[in-house]
Amino acid sequence: MNPIRVVQFGLGPIGQACVKVVLQKPGLELVGGIDIDPQKAGRDIGEICGLDRSLGIAVRGDGAAALADWRPQVVLHTTLSFVDHIEDQLTMIIQAGAHVISSSEELFYPFQRNPGFSQRIDTLAKQHGVAVIGTGVNPGFAMDILPLCLTGVCTEVKKIIVTRVVDSGPRRLPLQKKTGAGLSPQEFEHRLATGNFGHIGLRESALAVMDTLGWPVDEIEESIRPVMAETKMTTNFLTVEPGQVAGLRQVLRVKSGGQERLVLELEISVGAKDPRDSVEILGNPSFSMHIIEGGIFGGTATIAALVNTIPKLITAPPGLRTMMELPVPYAFESAGVKL
Amino acid sequence: MNPIRVVQFGLGPIGQACVKVVLQKPGLELVGGIDIDPQKAGRDIGEICGLDRSLGIAVRGDGAAALADWRPQVVLHTTLSFVDHIEDQLTMIIQAGAHVISSSEELFYPFQRNPGFSQRIDTLAKQHGVAVIGTGVNPGFAMDILPLCLTGVCTEVKKIIVTRVVDSGPRRLPLQKKTGAGLSPQEFEHRLATGNFGHIGLRESALAVMDTLGWPVDEIEESIRPVMAETKMTTNFLTVEPGQVAGLRQVLRVKSGGQERLVLELEISVGAKDPRDSVEILGNPSFSMHIIEGGIFGGTATIAALVNTIPKLITAPPGLRTMMELPVPYAFESAGVKL
Repeated sequence: MNPIRVVQFGLGPIGQACVKVVLQKPGLELVGGIDIDPQKAGRDIGEICGLDRSLGIAVRGDGAAALADWRPQVVLHTTLSFVDHIEDQLTMIIQAGAHVISSSEELFYPFQRNPGFSQRIDTLAKQHGVAVIGTGVNPGFAMDILPLCLTGVCTEVKKIIVTRVVDSGPRRLPLQKKTGAGLSPQEFEHRLATGNFGHIGLRESALAVMDTLGWPVDEIEESIRPVMAETKMTTNFLTVEPGQVAGLRQVLRVKSGGQERLVLELEISVGAKDPRDSVEILGNPSFSMHIIEGGIFGGTATIAALVNTIPKLITAPPGLRTMMELPVPYAFESAGVKL
Repeated sequence: MNPIRVVQFGLGPIGQACVKVVLQKPGLELVGGIDIDPQKAGRDIGEICGLDRSLGIAVRGDGAAALADWRPQVVLHTTLSFVDHIEDQLTMIIQAGAHVISSSEELFYPFQRNPGFSQRIDTLAKQHGVAVIGTGVNPGFAMDILPLCLTGVCTEVKKIIVTRVVDSGPRRLPLQKKTGAGLSPQEFEHRLATGNFGHIGLRESALAVMDTLGWPVDEIEESIRPVMAETKMTTNFLTVEPGQVAGLRQVLRVKSGGQERLVLELEISVGAKDPRDSVEILGNPSFSMHIIEGGIFGGTATIAALVNTIPKLITAPPGLRTMMELPVPYAFESAGVKL
């Protein structure tokens, strides 16, 4: 079988990491890279990604023409979070006849908050015979697919409580900044008041879980609070003083039938205590799942979620798809990996 | 939408529990029950299942004629573990034009150990436009689908270690007996020597995981050891004296590429210490998942796995299917459940 032809669209930190994983997999062939940054255009993808070798493929900024030249089967799309900002990019990729796997958090489950967008992308994808999906670790796994998977052995489910605590200290600067690390409490409140702050995708996870379980949503209550630093902490990028903000705790509570049925609690902070992933299922049977000692490392897991979806998406029906429709996730091509 | 017409084939403890769950779900309609036991034929299913009401449906032993009368869309099949023993039953159901979801452990992944059977069932199912699948909690979830799902966020997987420890004390007598509870060490060894002892399905779980991850199997090493009782323990059904067998520990180690890549450790014993489900993934990222405080309660989870598969299987392509091909598992119809 010929390897699957892949183009990486977006060569920021996540896109660069995707390139490295694609290069590891014999079943995948990296055929191009697209980025709108004029500083990147023309440079070799290997150089952009910090590889010790040239890949012989120059980054291009002229997306449509580049896609026509490269004819990828799949585009890994890692640019922006909001579907409003990526519709033109997705349209271009679909019109080039390629399947799209995107890290856009809103694309994981866009149907309720962006019905017009969802309809347009679904229709266009069907016209061009390609499938489009949004995935990642969160949304895409830790707070939606994994809890759903656990309910697969329940005859009834009364309530689900999902907790994810992420220590942003070892992670990238953008994650630290967008969760408020190093801000004063006043600056944090000011950011919060803009309405444009906090983790994107928690609501998408909640809507996906509720809809998939057939639970009508009465009401969603969301809160975002600062997590304060008690001691001085230094990351590779910044220092957080005691009394400054270390990160945030974002909680989403969803009612259905007059009862609280789903709680998603997410903390992302520098030096977070007891980083972990937990899922508590109240039902028959009731049980709790814990991934402790750091939880699922999000930096790598997002890349994995994107790449592992490739073989599944290309055999899915055309249209705007969700992770709930694809086969159960699993790693793609680890046979050659040595202990 | 009309409810899905379901027949329960096999009215032992698992079949009876399935009936109760089917009756809870508005999207399912129980239209019949089949059992070969002449003691059951002619009696009302409600009575057989210990319900406080008659269902107005008499159990029948004449499978083919009963299926022709009831015209189910799906048959829940809970009779025997080995595919050799159920091929005639499956053939009858398929020829009646019904999808089949079976608790047969071997049917979860029969391709390698029973290729002739698998080919015949797959061909027949395709001829009749129906899908056939084997599932349950183990095999079907705890030691295969759940570990696979966790690898979905790994860019590489080096090794997987799955541990399931089940306290058989609160479970059914057949589980206690088939794991040796109450035997002397000598009797245990004697049973073991028959080659027909131990949990069925561990090898199917292993083969499913290896094949799905694309790991060629060099060698499978299997061991079964008794777990000895240290104190006197009494279940609803039997008493285990100190020095008698409380259950068994079954371990399967699989090598690929000269390295041990998969270890499945299963203990089922009366009074098992620290009953739990654990999955350790060595890879990128590495992480461990734990379901402690009893693990996933198998009695209910098997029923759930069977019933929750109904809506997914009826839209799957015809043929002999696996849980790795279906969408990620999740609970079916829990909207009406109250806290």
